[in-house]
Amino acid sequence: MNIRFADRVKTLKGTDIRNKLFDNPELITFAAGKPDPALFPTVDLAPLASELLAKQGWDALQYSDTEGFLELREIIAYERMKAAGVDTTPEEITLTSGSQEGIELAAKIFINEGDKIIVESPSYTGSFTAFQIYNPTYISVPMDDEGIIIEELERVLKENPDAKMLYTIPDFQNPTGIQMADNRRKRLCELASEYRLPVIEDAPYTDLFYDGVRHPSLKAFDKDGWVIMLGSFSKTFCPGFRIGWVNARPEICEKFALCKQGTNLQCSTFDELLTIEYMKKYKLDDHIEDIRNLYKKKRDLMLKCVKKFFPAEVKYTTPHGGFFLWLKLKKDINTKELLIEAAKDYKVAFIPGSGFFAEPGYDNFIRLSFSFVSLEEIEEGMKRLGSCISAHY
Amino acid sequence: MNIRFADRVKTLKGTDIRNKLFDNPELITFAAGKPDPALFPTVDLAPLASELLAKQGWDALQYSDTEGFLELREIIAYERMKAAGVDTTPEEITLTSGSQEGIELAAKIFINEGDKIIVESPSYTGSFTAFQIYNPTYISVPMDDEGIIIEELERVLKENPDAKMLYTIPDFQNPTGIQMADNRRKRLCELASEYRLPVIEDAPYTDLFYDGVRHPSLKAFDKDGWVIMLGSFSKTFCPGFRIGWVNARPEICEKFALCKQGTNLQCSTFDELLTIEYMKKYKLDDHIEDIRNLYKKKRDLMLKCVKKFFPAEVKYTTPHGGFFLWLKLKKDINTKELLIEAAKDYKVAFIPGSGFFAEPGYDNFIRLSFSFVSLEEIEEGMKRLGSCISAHY
Repeated sequence: MNIRFADRVKTLKGTDIRNKLFDNPELITFAAGKPDPALFPTVDLAPLASELLAKQGWDALQYSDTEGFLELREIIAYERMKAAGVDTTPEEITLTSGSQEGIELAAKIFINEGDKIIVESPSYTGSFTAFQIYNPTYISVPMDDEGIIIEELERVLKENPDAKMLYTIPDFQNPTGIQMADNRRKRLCELASEYRLPVIEDAPYTDLFYDGVRHPSLKAFDKDGWVIMLGSFSKTFCPGFRIGWVNARPEICEKFALCKQGTNLQCSTFDELLTIEYMKKYKLDDHIEDIRNLYKKKRDLMLKCVKKFFPAEVKYTTPHGGFFLWLKLKKDINTKELLIEAAKDYKVAFIPGSGFFAEPGYDNFIRLSFSFVSLEEIEEGMKRLGSCISAHY
Repeated sequence: MNIRFADRVKTLKGTDIRNKLFDNPELITFAAGKPDPALFPTVDLAPLASELLAKQGWDALQYSDTEGFLELREIIAYERMKAAGVDTTPEEITLTSGSQEGIELAAKIFINEGDKIIVESPSYTGSFTAFQIYNPTYISVPMDDEGIIIEELERVLKENPDAKMLYTIPDFQNPTGIQMADNRRKRLCELASEYRLPVIEDAPYTDLFYDGVRHPSLKAFDKDGWVIMLGSFSKTFCPGFRIGWVNARPEICEKFALCKQGTNLQCSTFDELLTIEYMKKYKLDDHIEDIRNLYKKKRDLMLKCVKKFFPAEVKYTTPHGGFFLWLKLKKDINTKELLIEAAKDYKVAFIPGSGFFAEPGYDNFIRLSFSFVSLEEIEEGMKRLGSCISAHY
């Protein structure tokens, strides 16, 4: 049956992250970037949920405002954004259904068909899923251990002063785990001002630093209001609630709210109010410290296992936070094919790196996530993956 | 500061429904189409919420699948869709964040810039908010007391066989409250097949019939799979949960899921599971019967008040279900101006009708909602509104 779909969805593809291959329960999987559920505050939330329904049930189940409850936007502005080094107000905050929605709305707001947008190479595969609807032209800028290479970015901007938007994950990037250096953040903000370039700072991992040092967010260096920061409670509280936010100057925030109104009206009222109740009763920063302590152990173990089980020629990043490690295998290994072998013969899974690039040709990379798996699974799974990879060296 | 927004958002406007004018607590407002919160199952949900967190908290707060939990899609397919006269399976269901998101995704999936889409005249203002992003050409087809006028639709399709999509609310339409006659549903489905025309059936009010007769949904007449039905729990359960669904054939459902994945990954996991727990323990149909009984009383009273307090020349619809009544005042009354007067001098509010039309020039209409207000407020508010309107006759 011939259905006349819009051009924008004719060749639409899903991300490699949600792959039916991963459904085998025998697998140890380093694939999905999910939080460890043992860290979810289920015990604290249970009485709060029933109390909320008993005391404020009428409000909790009703429609609410698109931009989100003022009380929640105050917590975000005066606690979360402050922790990120940003001086802002609730008027510059609009809620989104996770920071994924922030990415989609940013694309909707800024990208005309064919517009040039600058992305880090590699970059978050889910951002491509959001961007592809608006059919931009990608300009990829390479990274090194200190994030996006600023000289390369300067060259790209000189050649493409009409670039419409830049998308970056400065803290513990998905997929590489790399953190952008402070001097690069500063320079990036100067370039944004010079080229009037909206910069989307996707910051879901910002609070999850494991080596004692918190860097100010990119937005903290932003003097002229070109940085649009996307925050999220998905990695530090509950991803299932789908609560994230945009922090941007009011005229940009307003566009996000208007587009969200047309998209789905609002986030879940109940989940918003439950989040407020939790934040009023508990210190999220204490909870985040617990999260950091556990993930740091997992990160350490995974790095140890790379050294122990993997061929010495395999290159890998050393993330100071977040969920991910990024591997570069030798050129002739296609990691999409390797995944099938790994899942079938070694019962271990990962995400092939190719989906994290705007261009083809990056077939020898792997993203590993250490957040969801237990320490035992990391040890055993890395051993399996090491054997699988070693067989090709 | 000159920000280079995408063309699609440059002239974006919000709906008239969320108007700061309505914030005055002295107002009796017939504006927003909110459910009566006294009908929310707060008492039943409170223990379920804490039990869910205690027993399945890890699942309830974690990421979940874009299309929604299978168990919920089974309930939707085998209970809700069956009640609507549709024989379907969970594979033909994908969740959306309310049926608003279904509208936005339909627009994304079908509308290229400039494509012709057919809408009822008038139609839901929030659908225009969703559609405007994709910049279609609207073709408005008038309605009478039995819904969209089929002869007009046939003429329009003959002249525009390339029309890309039709959007309709067959049951208790927002804003008019009109229900489409069964023979028109049948004929509309035949035309859809003939013209290969995707028909978006927005059906949030379908279960809320007040005069004993339930009509099969439009989708129930659809033999060839051109009808895409958007369902919702917002009017029969909890709007704050933002849980709606699409029922369409699998290749269309898949596009909805792919686009939703890029937009916000998924609905709230917690709210989905809580909905499942409620539906397992209680009969939603019993709850809906309570809802119908209360709204029927409100509908009856509002109609009585129109007759009692309004000038006899005012035309009004007689809805057999849903939330709304639609008034036509005499030609020289501009209801946007009347609203300001009504809110200031009479402490009563409504939605001016102009926002429900794709074209300008419909300035003398009013949408009244009877769902949210109490019986006492209906009596008093309609008296006030009657005085306000009468002063112009």
